Amino acid sequence: MKKIAVLTSGGDAPGLNACIRAVVRAGHYYNCEVIGVRRGFKGLIEKQFISLTPRDVGGIIDKGGTFLLSAREDRFLEYKYRKIAANNIREEKIDGLFVIGGNGSFQGAYLLSKEFGIPIIGIPKTIDNDTYGTEYTIGFDTAVNNAVDAIDKIRDTSESHERVFVIEVMGRKSGFLALAAGISTGADVTLIPEYPFPMHVIVKSIVDALNRGKKFAIVVVAEGVASAKEIADILNEKLKPFDFGGVRYSVLGYIQRGGSPTSYDRIMASRFGVFAVEEFMRGNRDFMVALENGKILSKPLEVSFGRIKKPDLKDFELNNILTI
Amino acid sequence: MKKIAVLTSGGDAPGLNACIRAVVRAGHYYNCEVIGVRRGFKGLIEKQFISLTPRDVGGIIDKGGTFLLSAREDRFLEYKYRKIAANNIREEKIDGLFVIGGNGSFQGAYLLSKEFGIPIIGIPKTIDNDTYGTEYTIGFDTAVNNAVDAIDKIRDTSESHERVFVIEVMGRKSGFLALAAGISTGADVTLIPEYPFPMHVIVKSIVDALNRGKKFAIVVVAEGVASAKEIADILNEKLKPFDFGGVRYSVLGYIQRGGSPTSYDRIMASRFGVFAVEEFMRGNRDFMVALENGKILSKPLEVSFGRIKKPDLKDFELNNILTI
Amino acid sequence: MKKIAVLTSGGDAPGLNACIRAVVRAGHYYNCEVIGVRRGFKGLIEKQFISLTPRDVGGIIDKGGTFLLSAREDRFLEYKYRKIAANNIREEKIDGLFVIGGNGSFQGAYLLSKEFGIPIIGIPKTIDNDTYGTEYTIGFDTAVNNAVDAIDKIRDTSESHERVFVIEVMGRKSGFLALAAGISTGADVTLIPEYPFPMHVIVKSIVDALNRGKKFAIVVVAEGVASAKEIADILNEKLKPFDFGGVRYSVLGYIQRGGSPTSYDRIMASRFGVFAVEEFMRGNRDFMVALENGKILSKPLEVSFGRIKKPDLKDFELNNILTI
Amino acid sequence: MKKIAVLTSGGDAPGLNACIRAVVRAGHYYNCEVIGVRRGFKGLIEKQFISLTPRDVGGIIDKGGTFLLSAREDRFLEYKYRKIAANNIREEKIDGLFVIGGNGSFQGAYLLSKEFGIPIIGIPKTIDNDTYGTEYTIGFDTAVNNAVDAIDKIRDTSESHERVFVIEVMGRKSGFLALAAGISTGADVTLIPEYPFPMHVIVKSIVDALNRGKKFAIVVVAEGVASAKEIADILNEKLKPFDFGGVRYSVLGYIQRGGSPTSYDRIMASRFGVFAVEEFMRGNRDFMVALENGKILSKPLEVSFGRIKKPDLKDFELNNILTI
Repeated sequence: MKKIAVLTSGGDAPGLNACIRAVVRAGHYYNCEVIGVRRGFKGLIEKQFISLTPRDVGGIIDKGGTFLLSAREDRFLEYKYRKIAANNIREEKIDGLFVIGGNGSFQGAYLLSKEFGIPIIGIPKTIDNDTYGTEYTIGFDTAVNNAVDAIDKIRDTSESHERVFVIEVMGRKSGFLALAAGISTGADVTLIPEYPFPMHVIVKSIVDALNRGKKFAIVVVAEGVASAKEIADILNEKLKPFDFGGVRYSVLGYIQRGGSPTSYDRIMASRFGVFAVEEFMRGNRDFMVALENGKILSKPLEVSFGRIKKPDLKDFELNNILTI
Repeated sequence: MKKIAVLTSGGDAPGLNACIRAVVRAGHYYNCEVIGVRRGFKGLIEKQFISLTPRDVGGIIDKGGTFLLSAREDRFLEYKYRKIAANNIREEKIDGLFVIGGNGSFQGAYLLSKEFGIPIIGIPKTIDNDTYGTEYTIGFDTAVNNAVDAIDKIRDTSESHERVFVIEVMGRKSGFLALAAGISTGADVTLIPEYPFPMHVIVKSIVDALNRGKKFAIVVVAEGVASAKEIADILNEKLKPFDFGGVRYSVLGYIQRGGSPTSYDRIMASRFGVFAVEEFMRGNRDFMVALENGKILSKPLEVSFGRIKKPDLKDFELNNILTI
Repeated sequence: MKKIAVLTSGGDAPGLNACIRAVVRAGHYYNCEVIGVRRGFKGLIEKQFISLTPRDVGGIIDKGGTFLLSAREDRFLEYKYRKIAANNIREEKIDGLFVIGGNGSFQGAYLLSKEFGIPIIGIPKTIDNDTYGTEYTIGFDTAVNNAVDAIDKIRDTSESHERVFVIEVMGRKSGFLALAAGISTGADVTLIPEYPFPMHVIVKSIVDALNRGKKFAIVVVAEGVASAKEIADILNEKLKPFDFGGVRYSVLGYIQRGGSPTSYDRIMASRFGVFAVEEFMRGNRDFMVALENGKILSKPLEVSFGRIKKPDLKDFELNNILTI
Repeated sequence: MKKIAVLTSGGDAPGLNACIRAVVRAGHYYNCEVIGVRRGFKGLIEKQFISLTPRDVGGIIDKGGTFLLSAREDRFLEYKYRKIAANNIREEKIDGLFVIGGNGSFQGAYLLSKEFGIPIIGIPKTIDNDTYGTEYTIGFDTAVNNAVDAIDKIRDTSESHERVFVIEVMGRKSGFLALAAGISTGADVTLIPEYPFPMHVIVKSIVDALNRGKKFAIVVVAEGVASAKEIADILNEKLKPFDFGGVRYSVLGYIQRGGSPTSYDRIMASRFGVFAVEEFMRGNRDFMVALENGKILSKPLEVSFGRIKKPDLKDFELNNILTI
């Protein structure tokens, strides 16, 4: 009988609870004992371990956030604290540590494997969908739908007041979320870090729209490109000659990460969690779960390190075709 | 056969379309010809008049925004432009101008009555619910639910990361929206302009919560009190000694005004619109529709001018009782 | 120091948890000890009592259903079981029993008062809004919005396929829900038990619409009038000559009772709960909380017995004015 | 310069408008003239052709249903009517007919190709996701989320009243929707046509759950397996000895097909539409767009005929692992 532990690390994402549930129940199904680690790496250092039975994870598949909690833990950057964490894991006789996290969390956990031989299983989650090596990360679909719902609402005001709206969505280094939100809402312009273009091009495309008689527009911008306010200020300046309702901006912020996960996130979280346990039972170690060509498979954990996943240029160009 | 005109003025609010529909169809039902004025007072000045039949307002009861559009129009502050507007109305032989707007729009329209004898009918709308003389204004219920949905989502992150969140909702001079959102989401503290209290009291109440072992909290603040960032900065400073996930803030912004109206807003908009027309048909002029003691009635338009409507202290105190 | 007990009885309704929370926290605020009774009257008979602290009701204001559970209990119709219930209440030294329920539950609880002197406090809830003596019952607003969201969705199919849809909503004896849903969705016909009219009138109004070139229509019917299938069958027969997409029906069913309560229900549940406790502390007994003329007040419990609350004829007629 | 026509055929699905928009705008981008055919094959026979410009499809990406309408048309089964349709298409000098439809619509359209040489381009849509040859069909994701939202609501009542609920979802021959809804809501049992198992097994699994002390359960059944009422009647009979709240059922019905499309459906509809036009411009004819291994590609239209697409057994087994 194996003993496994599961934790969530980094920013929360809708679907974490569904994934924890899947790990716990699949663990139980394959005769594992399951430990939950509270507050991510902090809980490893402080031995915040709780026993988890299948019943403990009932009624959570539809809840946002993570009931195991998450926390920043800078101490984990230091060898001596990782050693404490590793000792805690060994003391508890844990055969595999399931880390539901992003790229950064995988790298942190990987040190436990290299330095102390703790077997690590990574399950990718981040609303940014920017983990290299997998086409999907848990939380992305819900975050996009949250952003789209919000932008659909703002469009009502945009149209009614004939205003140009600049809407800032999450994504410090990555434009997947902005791009998906932009395509879904028919945004006139979508700005993402991966395919930058100069401000005068943006201004021109809005000016062209106003010249054609269109009196409102939506600009979606990933926070990593510029703040909505910056873009709005420039547009306000440049669009002064036109007769329309003016430029406004909105920062969607934290509403994107929360809420009940979509069906897609619940299913992917469930599949990822079950697959991770099954792969572990087959003897695989130090791997991450990944979606590739629409199929779930495992890859060495290191695959995701230090590499950048970019949106398909084809998807970026889609916007040019679809907006007029 | 009477001829009436309808316009929407000021910030958009969910339910405007439902109300226009009600005015048009009730007008038709009582044998009136109905004119729609586009872009509010601007449309009066520029004679942007369109004919509206019952069929023209089909399929809009569930749509946010206003298909008649809305616009700022500073020229209306000048007598000479109001005269142009009045002439346009007279030329069109309009017997009553239905203004779906807030306090400010009513005052503007009232000048047309006083200066030029144009009969005005006011129907109150504003997501702030702060029009004096009526218990309800169209758009408030949807705006509150929009804010509540957003805060419910942010609570997922607040709980998962054990953070204190400061959430800024709309309300420059008025706390109805903040108060309703605060009660509905079980906010630990709700800050509104009408019942100010010093920052140290707020800090104390969060400190008390953290001392009791509660590791997350929600503070709802109306934009008129302070920005979410200002409050968050102070809390961050004061709460440094505590072990929790830190303070974050979010500005809900324009998502509060948009989206499909709730049932309550659709029904109130429909009732207000029909009542306005019926009252007009009974010969009443220069009145506003109002909800008082749960009943719809009419009041002189001037009732709402220059007076401040405050939330019930009892509702404000509710929060003290309900949060721990 | 007083000791109070709270239970939920009858069909569940969104807002029950918000109301339990309010009773528990207001109880605590006014120095009462609070007992929760599980499974309604069944729990009274079987002494399923649990202690409730303010913390126990944290995080539930936004949850549908009732965490105290609800159950049918026919034994409560018998004197000997009511005596057992009363003895359990007395043994526990409970000074007041707060019953969150409908008309039927109030009548059941009232027997405990008359027969055994147990002080009863009634808080009205039912998605039907048909409790006599109060303008509002907890759960109604959410149920209406649930129905409206569903009908808005069905309208997409209705329009796209040019079909007449008959949609059955809850309401065995009462048409408040159907009427509110009908007005909110612009239904062409709304059928409620209180204002019956013959089938040929309904058929005629649909026929008239088809003759005018309208090719789809929505009929909302309260389940107490007839089943959606019955109405659809008749319409199918009568509308055969017309060129349109045919008649379909849908029974909304249980989705109307569930889901996160709207802001309105959360606030009313909170106010009702707090007011009930405050009134109890002022010494009032055997009363129900009620909304009258938009104000919360108390009334003798018996007020609601054996009397029928009807929708305002004015609201019913609204539909005639608003649909074309 | 090419001229293309687009129509929607069969049951409506969320995302149809997004797909029409994509075909129209991509057509425009690649210098095609675009004709919209109203009411599917009926419109081909009756020459209900309208010209579509990019501006005509603005503001529809977020709308459910299809603004081109859809209709049953049995005449299309007859050669003479197909000949009329083909003549209409030729007269209009249409170079390619884009059919957004399911398997059946593709087969119908294919006859126009074989009999009259009309070039056909198929874009798969159906909320059932059962078109052979493609991993995805437009509308599925939204339909699943609609079902999940509804079941999440019913779960509130299920838990509060400790009842077993049997919930019928769409799917006459196919269980994709039921399976996705079952996994997403943590249903205790999911019944689909593709992997039948005897009723006594279902009964046993519910009995086991009740014996373990679980007092509520969700059974999701695809309509093709049995009606919810049938299943509920059997369960009611077999579960009589147990102390719980009884068995209830609900038929979700048409709410599953409607509503604003999810981001996933908007994006897939957009990609499918643009890809279809690009492939057409590259000279490909008589093909369908398909998703395979997560990539969009084209396949001969005949691929989808007469073959059955089944859910992955692995996904079906997921439920056994995840429910306890």
